[in-house]
Amino acid sequence: MSRETKENLPKARLPRGFADRTPAEIKAADRIMGVIRDVYERYGFEPVETPFIEYADALGKFLPDQDRPNEGVFAFQDDDEEWLSLRYDLTAPLARHVAENYERLVKPYRSYRAGWVFRNEKPGPGRFRQFMQFDADTVGAPSVAADAEICMMAADTMEAIGIPRGDYVIRVNNRKVLDGVMEAAGIGGVDQAGTRLSVLRAIDKLDKFPLEDVRLLLGKGRMDESGDFTKGAGLDDATIDKFMAFIEAATGELGETFFADLEKTTLGESETGKEGLRELAEIQTLVEGAGYGPDRIRIDPSVVRGLEYYTGPVFEAELTFEITDDDGRPMRFGSVGGGGRYDGLVGRFRGENMPATGFSVGVSRLVSALAAREGAAAKPLGPVVVLAMDRDPAAMAAYQRFAKELRDGLKAAGIKLGAEVYLGGSGMKAQMKYADRRNAPCVVIQGSSERETGTVQIKDLIEGKRISEGVTDNKTWREERFAQTSVAEGEMVATVVEVVSRYLDMPDS
Amino acid sequence: MSRETKENLPKARLPRGFADRTPAEIKAADRIMGVIRDVYERYGFEPVETPFIEYADALGKFLPDQDRPNEGVFAFQDDDEEWLSLRYDLTAPLARHVAENYERLVKPYRSYRAGWVFRNEKPGPGRFRQFMQFDADTVGAPSVAADAEICMMAADTMEAIGIPRGDYVIRVNNRKVLDGVMEAAGIGGVDQAGTRLSVLRAIDKLDKFPLEDVRLLLGKGRMDESGDFTKGAGLDDATIDKFMAFIEAATGELGETFFADLEKTTLGESETGKEGLRELAEIQTLVEGAGYGPDRIRIDPSVVRGLEYYTGPVFEAELTFEITDDDGRPMRFGSVGGGGRYDGLVGRFRGENMPATGFSVGVSRLVSALAAREGAAAKPLGPVVVLAMDRDPAAMAAYQRFAKELRDGLKAAGIKLGAEVYLGGSGMKAQMKYADRRNAPCVVIQGSSERETGTVQIKDLIEGKRISEGVTDNKTWREERFAQTSVAEGEMVATVVEVVSRYLDMPDS
Repeated sequence: MSRETKENLPKARLPRGFADRTPAEIKAADRIMGVIRDVYERYGFEPVETPFIEYADALGKFLPDQDRPNEGVFAFQDDDEEWLSLRYDLTAPLARHVAENYERLVKPYRSYRAGWVFRNEKPGPGRFRQFMQFDADTVGAPSVAADAEICMMAADTMEAIGIPRGDYVIRVNNRKVLDGVMEAAGIGGVDQAGTRLSVLRAIDKLDKFPLEDVRLLLGKGRMDESGDFTKGAGLDDATIDKFMAFIEAATGELGETFFADLEKTTLGESETGKEGLRELAEIQTLVEGAGYGPDRIRIDPSVVRGLEYYTGPVFEAELTFEITDDDGRPMRFGSVGGGGRYDGLVGRFRGENMPATGFSVGVSRLVSALAAREGAAAKPLGPVVVLAMDRDPAAMAAYQRFAKELRDGLKAAGIKLGAEVYLGGSGMKAQMKYADRRNAPCVVIQGSSERETGTVQIKDLIEGKRISEGVTDNKTWREERFAQTSVAEGEMVATVVEVVSRYLDMPDS
Repeated sequence: MSRETKENLPKARLPRGFADRTPAEIKAADRIMGVIRDVYERYGFEPVETPFIEYADALGKFLPDQDRPNEGVFAFQDDDEEWLSLRYDLTAPLARHVAENYERLVKPYRSYRAGWVFRNEKPGPGRFRQFMQFDADTVGAPSVAADAEICMMAADTMEAIGIPRGDYVIRVNNRKVLDGVMEAAGIGGVDQAGTRLSVLRAIDKLDKFPLEDVRLLLGKGRMDESGDFTKGAGLDDATIDKFMAFIEAATGELGETFFADLEKTTLGESETGKEGLRELAEIQTLVEGAGYGPDRIRIDPSVVRGLEYYTGPVFEAELTFEITDDDGRPMRFGSVGGGGRYDGLVGRFRGENMPATGFSVGVSRLVSALAAREGAAAKPLGPVVVLAMDRDPAAMAAYQRFAKELRDGLKAAGIKLGAEVYLGGSGMKAQMKYADRRNAPCVVIQGSSERETGTVQIKDLIEGKRISEGVTDNKTWREERFAQTSVAEGEMVATVVEVVSRYLDMPDS
């Protein structure tokens, strides 16, 4: 390696929007993903994975940010000048996979995958350019029974990872309903795409703003507290009234007249809208018939999902419990996943529609949500540490042998804990500090005098700390000796197992 | 979505060097990674992960392909014109992570991580541009005790994933030994870098070519069977003799005179070489003292590792059993992992060396090796399939409820198997074919007549296939009826559990 000059050292830093993952975050995500995998497999889904890099034209451009149509994706040219992209979701690559292997796959094709995706966007607080999704998709199932099943699976997933019923809801809408409402309101034409986008963005703010603000956004626009003005959709009052009536019916109680009210108040003569409502009613029948009430899966025609490729039912998994935001104010956690039907995405390779529906869990957001709910976990127990009292190869070899025996013994005792030799260059005091910072339950000590008698000292760090923190008089200093035991080498493993077992009710050990 | 014209459809294909992963590959890799994780944690290593994208200057350029110094890495410019790279290994990002969090980390810092890495190289058969590595590293441990421990952990890893002792070996060398030999041979100068690279490449061919070919590569060069000529290092005969004597000693028996022979025959007066040999002898003492004989960890000073950042001991995990290559010839599988000491890599951010050593398992290669060894696994059992006999929402809701009860019942019985409703648009015959191709153990059938009596038919597909494949006379056609049972809805779960249990000795079920 060519040594850089001191003045010219590279900086140890990450680009904005990227972050390292801590042990706690990794363990939490792994646990959640194991649970999700189990739920998906019990629904008959099998794993399949695609690579991180695809041809840009195979992924297409379906990201929601219409203002910057050429951005949002990390792209670069290959040796042969073809454009490659890092995947921005797991749905577009799946569509490519299915189209490429169409004849071979058993259809309906149920598959799942977890993986990192990348968005080349301006990062912000809590907004990353790399994040983890966990998707399940059914390709080749035309009826909304497939959409209903995805919703039930999403509800089961939330409960399986430990979010109690009532603290989440799967909200279901249908793109066709919103399209129909807009058509009926006279903004269905090709030249009105901009207005439709503004209307959708206004409706999408329902979970953040009060109704009167949404009304402003449907009309002339809204000024926020800081004085920033957001231009509205520019609808006239009569049309706005229709949308507000729709919103009221859409977010109302799921009573017997729910669908009739919706159709009456809002849809006029739009066939698209009526078909959308019929599909929603069928989903409602299916999930209720399978035992999923509106406390778990709720029809809510005001739901807007950003991605451009959806063609029918869309779903959103929302956590409804309150957490405290950075300024100490209570807030709902909000969306942790979503999905919908995308009948055109596989078909774009084949020139004909191919029914497909799927759901994506935002794993990183779910980890944050559970952490916010449960608070910081207690630090898990670290490994048993064999101190390096002597550094000659023979002594170090013996310590390594001790560590190996401890690993084997702990494993045989069914204890998920490691053992290691201290490998730094420091003395006894620093080694004890190391063991303490690793949260080791105990250390094993063999200096020359113990070696001569074939014994080891085992020091219980947790009991030792408890005693030394408690009191300071002579009697307790003597008692602290109880936290240290001298045993024959042959009893080392059994003694350590006994000490460690005292603390196994501690979290994650 | 704007519909593409038929002539202008995007192609469903992957760039060269990238591949989708099948369920079998995913399951095999997941199993292996779970085992590796357990071994690493038992050695006291904790997980930490870095993102896929880093500043190019933070990763540096340490890839082995010296002929193309600016290639090998996928790189692109960020909005602020800074160059970003996809990580090409997990070591360079770890070095950045440690340098960035240096004060906070408990040292020696033991950590592990699995992840995909990317090489922008010309892909070939079995050579991919994206592959999975599983690394463990110890930072802040200056002595070779840390290297010895990494070697023992590598050996434990091989056995834990099911490679028996004798079918693998961890081979250990030290960069300083090869440097010393070359120094003693008079090719240690700055102007001889090209010659040294040619010598290392010649020695690196020891596991592929016979000794006389390596000799040719140390001299004028070698012509292969196809007539292609590889230029040699251009050494004179006397110097070549010295290298061949070194190779003979280096690959010989690990007897008592091993290190003395090596020093005598090859090293002259190089202090670097002597230090390298002393370190190897100490590693040998440590691993043997901890019970790891040369059948598991073998000192072999002929090992060459390509990556430029190694500064001391280097390791290679090699599978020694034979497999059959594509042309039907027996071959050794070869390397499935490697690593070494890289004292300069963290230090390049700080302007001073920082001891570090680590090991990387090539997960994808290990999956291939185990597949080549074990042959194709039997196809795992698929989910229980509830047929969609009727498509009205009420019937479909009942099928979904059956599937839910089956999932819950199978889980309660401790059976790792799913259940699903058929969601395609096809008729009975195609549905049976679907269940067969999914390898479903049985299907559940409820048409209108069963619904009236509150019963379901359960058809055992495996028994049914066994009977129908066996014989064709009338008697056995009657017997085939035994593969189908009619039970009350309330007995469905218990009956399915009983049927499925018959086949649970099948792999992966």
